[in-house]
Amino acid sequence: MKFDVTSLGEIICRLSPPGNERLSRCEELKRQIGGAELNVVSALSNMGLRSAIITKIPNNRLGVFVKNSIRSFGVSDDLLIYDNSSNARLGLYYSESGAAPRKPCVIYDREHSSFCSLTLEDINPEIYSASKIFHTTGITLALAPEIRENTIEIIKEFSKTKKTLISFDVNFRANLWNEDEARKTITEILPYVDIFFCSQETAKLTFGKTGNVEQILKSFADEYNIKIVASTKRDAITPKVHSFTSYIYDSTNKAFYTEKPYENIDVIDRIGSGDAYIAGVLYGLLTHDFDCMKALQYGNAFSVLKNTIPGDILCSDISEINSIISAHNGGHTSEMDR
Amino acid sequence: MKFDVTSLGEIICRLSPPGNERLSRCEELKRQIGGAELNVVSALSNMGLRSAIITKIPNNRLGVFVKNSIRSFGVSDDLLIYDNSSNARLGLYYSESGAAPRKPCVIYDREHSSFCSLTLEDINPEIYSASKIFHTTGITLALAPEIRENTIEIIKEFSKTKKTLISFDVNFRANLWNEDEARKTITEILPYVDIFFCSQETAKLTFGKTGNVEQILKSFADEYNIKIVASTKRDAITPKVHSFTSYIYDSTNKAFYTEKPYENIDVIDRIGSGDAYIAGVLYGLLTHDFDCMKALQYGNAFSVLKNTIPGDILCSDISEINSIISAHNGGHTSEMDR
Amino acid sequence: MKFDVTSLGEIICRLSPPGNERLSRCEELKRQIGGAELNVVSALSNMGLRSAIITKIPNNRLGVFVKNSIRSFGVSDDLLIYDNSSNARLGLYYSESGAAPRKPCVIYDREHSSFCSLTLEDINPEIYSASKIFHTTGITLALAPEIRENTIEIIKEFSKTKKTLISFDVNFRANLWNEDEARKTITEILPYVDIFFCSQETAKLTFGKTGNVEQILKSFADEYNIKIVASTKRDAITPKVHSFTSYIYDSTNKAFYTEKPYENIDVIDRIGSGDAYIAGVLYGLLTHDFDCMKALQYGNAFSVLKNTIPGDILCSDISEINSIISAHNGGHTSEMDR
Amino acid sequence: MKFDVTSLGEIICRLSPPGNERLSRCEELKRQIGGAELNVVSALSNMGLRSAIITKIPNNRLGVFVKNSIRSFGVSDDLLIYDNSSNARLGLYYSESGAAPRKPCVIYDREHSSFCSLTLEDINPEIYSASKIFHTTGITLALAPEIRENTIEIIKEFSKTKKTLISFDVNFRANLWNEDEARKTITEILPYVDIFFCSQETAKLTFGKTGNVEQILKSFADEYNIKIVASTKRDAITPKVHSFTSYIYDSTNKAFYTEKPYENIDVIDRIGSGDAYIAGVLYGLLTHDFDCMKALQYGNAFSVLKNTIPGDILCSDISEINSIISAHNGGHTSEMDR
Amino acid sequence: MKFDVTSLGEIICRLSPPGNERLSRCEELKRQIGGAELNVVSALSNMGLRSAIITKIPNNRLGVFVKNSIRSFGVSDDLLIYDNSSNARLGLYYSESGAAPRKPCVIYDREHSSFCSLTLEDINPEIYSASKIFHTTGITLALAPEIRENTIEIIKEFSKTKKTLISFDVNFRANLWNEDEARKTITEILPYVDIFFCSQETAKLTFGKTGNVEQILKSFADEYNIKIVASTKRDAITPKVHSFTSYIYDSTNKAFYTEKPYENIDVIDRIGSGDAYIAGVLYGLLTHDFDCMKALQYGNAFSVLKNTIPGDILCSDISEINSIISAHNGGHTSEMDR
Amino acid sequence: MKFDVTSLGEIICRLSPPGNERLSRCEELKRQIGGAELNVVSALSNMGLRSAIITKIPNNRLGVFVKNSIRSFGVSDDLLIYDNSSNARLGLYYSESGAAPRKPCVIYDREHSSFCSLTLEDINPEIYSASKIFHTTGITLALAPEIRENTIEIIKEFSKTKKTLISFDVNFRANLWNEDEARKTITEILPYVDIFFCSQETAKLTFGKTGNVEQILKSFADEYNIKIVASTKRDAITPKVHSFTSYIYDSTNKAFYTEKPYENIDVIDRIGSGDAYIAGVLYGLLTHDFDCMKALQYGNAFSVLKNTIPGDILCSDISEINSIISAHNGGHTSEMDR
Repeated sequence: MKFDVTSLGEIICRLSPPGNERLSRCEELKRQIGGAELNVVSALSNMGLRSAIITKIPNNRLGVFVKNSIRSFGVSDDLLIYDNSSNARLGLYYSESGAAPRKPCVIYDREHSSFCSLTLEDINPEIYSASKIFHTTGITLALAPEIRENTIEIIKEFSKTKKTLISFDVNFRANLWNEDEARKTITEILPYVDIFFCSQETAKLTFGKTGNVEQILKSFADEYNIKIVASTKRDAITPKVHSFTSYIYDSTNKAFYTEKPYENIDVIDRIGSGDAYIAGVLYGLLTHDFDCMKALQYGNAFSVLKNTIPGDILCSDISEINSIISAHNGGHTSEMDR
Repeated sequence: MKFDVTSLGEIICRLSPPGNERLSRCEELKRQIGGAELNVVSALSNMGLRSAIITKIPNNRLGVFVKNSIRSFGVSDDLLIYDNSSNARLGLYYSESGAAPRKPCVIYDREHSSFCSLTLEDINPEIYSASKIFHTTGITLALAPEIRENTIEIIKEFSKTKKTLISFDVNFRANLWNEDEARKTITEILPYVDIFFCSQETAKLTFGKTGNVEQILKSFADEYNIKIVASTKRDAITPKVHSFTSYIYDSTNKAFYTEKPYENIDVIDRIGSGDAYIAGVLYGLLTHDFDCMKALQYGNAFSVLKNTIPGDILCSDISEINSIISAHNGGHTSEMDR
Repeated sequence: MKFDVTSLGEIICRLSPPGNERLSRCEELKRQIGGAELNVVSALSNMGLRSAIITKIPNNRLGVFVKNSIRSFGVSDDLLIYDNSSNARLGLYYSESGAAPRKPCVIYDREHSSFCSLTLEDINPEIYSASKIFHTTGITLALAPEIRENTIEIIKEFSKTKKTLISFDVNFRANLWNEDEARKTITEILPYVDIFFCSQETAKLTFGKTGNVEQILKSFADEYNIKIVASTKRDAITPKVHSFTSYIYDSTNKAFYTEKPYENIDVIDRIGSGDAYIAGVLYGLLTHDFDCMKALQYGNAFSVLKNTIPGDILCSDISEINSIISAHNGGHTSEMDR
Repeated sequence: MKFDVTSLGEIICRLSPPGNERLSRCEELKRQIGGAELNVVSALSNMGLRSAIITKIPNNRLGVFVKNSIRSFGVSDDLLIYDNSSNARLGLYYSESGAAPRKPCVIYDREHSSFCSLTLEDINPEIYSASKIFHTTGITLALAPEIRENTIEIIKEFSKTKKTLISFDVNFRANLWNEDEARKTITEILPYVDIFFCSQETAKLTFGKTGNVEQILKSFADEYNIKIVASTKRDAITPKVHSFTSYIYDSTNKAFYTEKPYENIDVIDRIGSGDAYIAGVLYGLLTHDFDCMKALQYGNAFSVLKNTIPGDILCSDISEINSIISAHNGGHTSEMDR
Repeated sequence: MKFDVTSLGEIICRLSPPGNERLSRCEELKRQIGGAELNVVSALSNMGLRSAIITKIPNNRLGVFVKNSIRSFGVSDDLLIYDNSSNARLGLYYSESGAAPRKPCVIYDREHSSFCSLTLEDINPEIYSASKIFHTTGITLALAPEIRENTIEIIKEFSKTKKTLISFDVNFRANLWNEDEARKTITEILPYVDIFFCSQETAKLTFGKTGNVEQILKSFADEYNIKIVASTKRDAITPKVHSFTSYIYDSTNKAFYTEKPYENIDVIDRIGSGDAYIAGVLYGLLTHDFDCMKALQYGNAFSVLKNTIPGDILCSDISEINSIISAHNGGHTSEMDR
Repeated sequence: MKFDVTSLGEIICRLSPPGNERLSRCEELKRQIGGAELNVVSALSNMGLRSAIITKIPNNRLGVFVKNSIRSFGVSDDLLIYDNSSNARLGLYYSESGAAPRKPCVIYDREHSSFCSLTLEDINPEIYSASKIFHTTGITLALAPEIRENTIEIIKEFSKTKKTLISFDVNFRANLWNEDEARKTITEILPYVDIFFCSQETAKLTFGKTGNVEQILKSFADEYNIKIVASTKRDAITPKVHSFTSYIYDSTNKAFYTEKPYENIDVIDRIGSGDAYIAGVLYGLLTHDFDCMKALQYGNAFSVLKNTIPGDILCSDISEINSIISAHNGGHTSEMDR
């Protein structure tokens, strides 16, 4: 297998004012790239796994910025598709930090992007058998009708090989579609899914689940024959202080996992911490023979650490992750790394 | 009425080092404009009301900076008076942030400014009947003898129309005058005042008031026949964390208002939050038919939000304010605006 | 008349890396606003005339940035139309400076913007009789079919009043439309045009004009009964050094004007210098009783000065302009303004 | 005496990314100078005492940066020694801030620096009798064998005069030497030491001390006939919030001192706060006739304040220090210095 | 062949003050990576060829910065060797721009770096047959005796395969070695070299060549049986304005090539322009079947363009290069890319 | 003698926007210190001479900024006088760069500064005999009547010792006084002056001199018995390109000196280049036994180099100066210092 994880999703440009400045005023913006699916594979490559992303970007200097950025994270640029059309565009979003009681804010400008013009013909079929895990999210399904259909088709192609696990994160966004559309579409693909990420709130509101978190996760696993179902629990004390843990249900051995929350996380940039969680879970599964407790520990540590790092992407390495897990579990720790 | 609120006061240039840097060291300074009276009308215009400021500025590129800045907030530049003299100057102050236990610090350099040369002849008398509310502060009275006399005269002119309410904020500054001067001057104008802002500390030390906050506010209202008296309560836990609420006494229906404090405010920049409070109170009065509970809620929300925004001015809009009030009152709120 | 000049056009956000950095690499971007039509009215308001722009912008924080920016230049926000739809977007472009032999570069991302959804119903008809001059450009015509039709209609409405002069700049952009479309559309509106700006290159390639510049300008005036026809001559020695002058034909007194070029202009930012030229011509006409030599001198000085100022907008004042004209004409000049 | 305090140590260049950025990614670095021994004398000169440092720096523009920087703090450049060799180098270190649960991080690149080539011949012997206190640390001893031997010799030279007190801070760094080396070397110089700083952890692990902090400090004093022994107690709640106090044993009057800790310190930059403590203790001793309670109060205030200031150096003045001590002891304090 | 070009050389960190600031004063430094050999392969990968670099870097966050940076250029990180030793260090240099008559300045701090500890055992022998061209420079030979010996060995290994061309740039640096050492070492490897780069000045001073440039280049080719010999001609009018061309001698068909110089180059950053020249020559040879005129044109365009781009690396793409060549040869060109 | 040169003058704070930004718009300002007299002594101390400045500054954090800044240049802070009054202020000026045809611009805000309150009683009389040269300028005389009188008194005090040479630069500023005042005041002090700096333009307009430059300089020397009279010749081709040379008349040996101009100077910051010239002349005189040709060469090189350095102060060292003189005189020079 050439790649540990391949994802499919839009890469978007993020523009954000420094510090606590406001989008309605600030002339200086920081440009970075992100996107739920890119965030997952970037974190994995930064940790040393091999990953790639199927996406489509403009064939101009903005596309070069994207290409060079993902290469810097170690994500392969082999699967990039270039849009040579005259209306090629790179989707973008603007983000502003919060400070209690002011909430963080995101404004999207991602319609009509090159990604939405991706077709099945753009994809080399060898891709479908080149990865241990294929990951995508509800955002990709929600962007536009054509990309939705194509995504479902791509999921099926990866699934056909029987050698690739399908990972899917619901990541429900009310600004992209409504709950009915989401449920209808996602339940269509759930039979193909092996690893499933869904928040409790979405499980209840979108999928009508009831009961406690264990019951909810188990219910997904049972209904759709999913191997692993995971859900995070973030508590936003203020925009700058969170606590975090998560839950995993492993249907193979019918086990349910959690750990005590990380408390008093200094939230520098919350965006992408959900995606980092997924990366951590996949990292734990791939490197520890699908041990779900390890997956949960890595997921939590990846996510928590991401909150302390500016930008969408978890810029770190595995030794830092391991030291955070160790400290969380009471291991000896110094005040500073020298 | 052309304007909802007109104020009179000095616009000063603020120079501040970034982040936690020190005034005694830092070469990079951020320039913004402020001033207690400008801060009030700027917040009001940002919220959609029409406002103006009577002031005098140098007729050079520094004056252009001031003019363009107030225009950007939506404050009318119609009432600006330009100083063509060779010693025209723009007053300024330097400000440094705090970090516990280091206190924030402000150094003023505002003497001999163009504002102090403002004369009654500079003012078009049509101004006096063009505004629903006229607002000024004790700082304007304290700057210099001539501006003090002129200010009192201007207050009387606005008052004469019987259509303009007079709003006054004591804003006592020991570096500008002493308590005796302040009391003597302010008690001279209080008979013209309809809406009065005074801290409890100043009420006690400068005006010799005693009793609890309700008694103090009522005492001003009774003694000088003031319609509305308001006082804020800030608790500076550390330079970066405050709590805040306020009190209003409405003499018309003899009612006293307060609400539970906002807690754990992330203080990014505390300067101007008192002025934002006044803007919020005036906003509530003007848009909600002089409902003092609304005025208090807006006052508190304006002030609290200002603390989270760099600079003197409340850069926001009314929908953000409303969502903060709603969240404070237990309304449903998401972690992030998307 | 409420306004000296009203324009119609899209306001776009400009993102540019600092100094000589590259769009394909740089994380720090400067955000400013611009647009050919806004650039004209902004320069005029900075010089003290009253101007406004008819445009449509998103009703979010990006729209607030636009609103506050044009207010800071002194352009009225009265004619702004707000787009409340969920797919409201602010068009944008990316720009990179040049350094010989590297050329400057611009990448547009302005399709599907809120401006293109502007309808005639959005416009208060009182606007049509509130301005001495109405100005727009070929860019507005080229953006999309609907806005093209509406623009033609708006030109006719302004023209109907007989009190408003119509100013039009061809500003041909090959990335927006082709020469046939441009010629067909523009010849349709030329009968309504009083002041016409067209480069010699476009006159030849798009309109099939021949002869020297005087013959070309006269030919437009004669054919379409245009009062004033103007054309600029820029010589880009390197991306950082230009020379510049222009030509005006005044059909009323059949006179042709030019002046010796400005040489060795330090080009800090070339974008918007053509729009500044138009502003200068209109300024000269409006303030000097349609004296075309004055118009040419102001046009040249506005344009040349714009090249020395970062951003699309001519940020200056009339005394600086006058001193540049005076120095160009051999008047005494010091090395530095003190 | 020409100087109040003279120290011996390496001046190193510090490179740090802004805010919460990462060393593995950030292109923008802030350059400052530091070094345990420089930090002590810089704080003292900023407070008005006269100080100098014996060190060796490259005779190039990097050396000029060092020279000018220490002069700006008021530290004398008289004792600087310039390295004219072709392999002169300025040691440096990279530092990254922490955000819970991410730890701060420091990477050293200080081997083979010019300082390590300092010889006894480089030093003018008049220095040895020109200072009230001579201070150095275990870091200087640990850098290299030659500098270790020379440092011991220099300590003896200062000690010989009988007029200069010897101050020594263990400052154990596991990345420079091991505990055996440290104990062996330091016990060799302890007979010359008058003022001794050692953390409890190092006292136990390196020197095998047992008992409570009072017993440990007293044990050093008794064993080596040391006048004053001090130890700090930092509690790192998170990388951004610390509490702090310290302990001093005065063997002359056999007294033990401490005070209640400073709580909720906003840690902007923790580096150098231990050195600031030493500066505070020496300041208190020198200016208050060796009153150890004063020394402890100054030590704590210096250290606590340093945490709130970016960079290694305590950039402050004595009036700010006094106001922090006063506030800690319950004195009246305002929210802001105006 | 896996790679088009593989190089061997030290990657160093470059620290430079912004704009025209001075190394002796400026606190803000920009960090980038460079190195003569890296610069060559980075330019090639940016143009779409496949390249790699054999080097050794610290296994810490500074090494991650290097790894991610070269990945962003598209240079493979497969051949990176990580130094886990406790004294691993990344060499660096400081650079300051010039402004006439102030000269640019570079200060090196690269001794004892991890690269110098590279051994033949660190290298996977498969590398030797994986590249069409192997490139290195005299800098690598000059760094230290061990790396010199190893480099000669590595050249021989690549040469043994008979499938890899050896490219060598003298790049004489008087601060690293003297002319005798250089001549002695380089003449030892010249028999293995196929493509040779040497300045006329070095040819004369170091190798004792005489005659005109054609005679000099031919003399190297004849004496050592070198296929292609190239030499650049830079004329530094001022630090900010250069002209540039080059000469190539092709021994296969005994032809000598040059073209008219590029004039009036805006020099933003001169460093790395010599390395970009080499990249251009290799690009032309590899993509145009060893056509030396193409190689010369690409070499000149690469080099000239590099001067306009901040940093060591030619950040560009092949279409920009082609448009510069076309404009230089009189092709039609617009003032701006839109 | 403790100092080589002592000056008397106001230290002012300079605020300037970055690059080509405008004072009427830019929020980011760079703070530096300057002042004609400080610029002279700072350049001298940077070159290794011992210097001091008599001035008065506020006793607050702004004063600390001044104190630390002059210390960083090596100027002694021994003669600083601190203003403890409540209206202490630091004078300042705003400066904006030019770009042809836009002129550079300076706005002063220096009235009522602490310096103007300097009294003779503030000065320790030992100062008067502690310096080889005393230097001041017409700016100091022009600031206010009191400081004018005191300055004249101070000149006389220095002169009385017979051991100190008096250096005086006319530096006529029309915004501070008029030509009549200037002539009247300066002719009063010329009998005490040994080294006199005056531009030809001022010589003609203010002092009514006629003839060529040699005649003018000689005329001053003869009339007032001045040892050395110097005058600079700057030719501002554009704000970014100047040429420069100067003339010196040495009355002792009745010789007149000049040299060929420096051409094509890249003017990064022109402010302070006149003061740097004076520093160079004094440096040449003091270090080369009053050889006026040396003085002229140093003066020219100091001045020319200052133009290439941001800020008022010549931040350089004597080896750089010597290399510029050598290159100007045709000495061998490389393109870059490595």
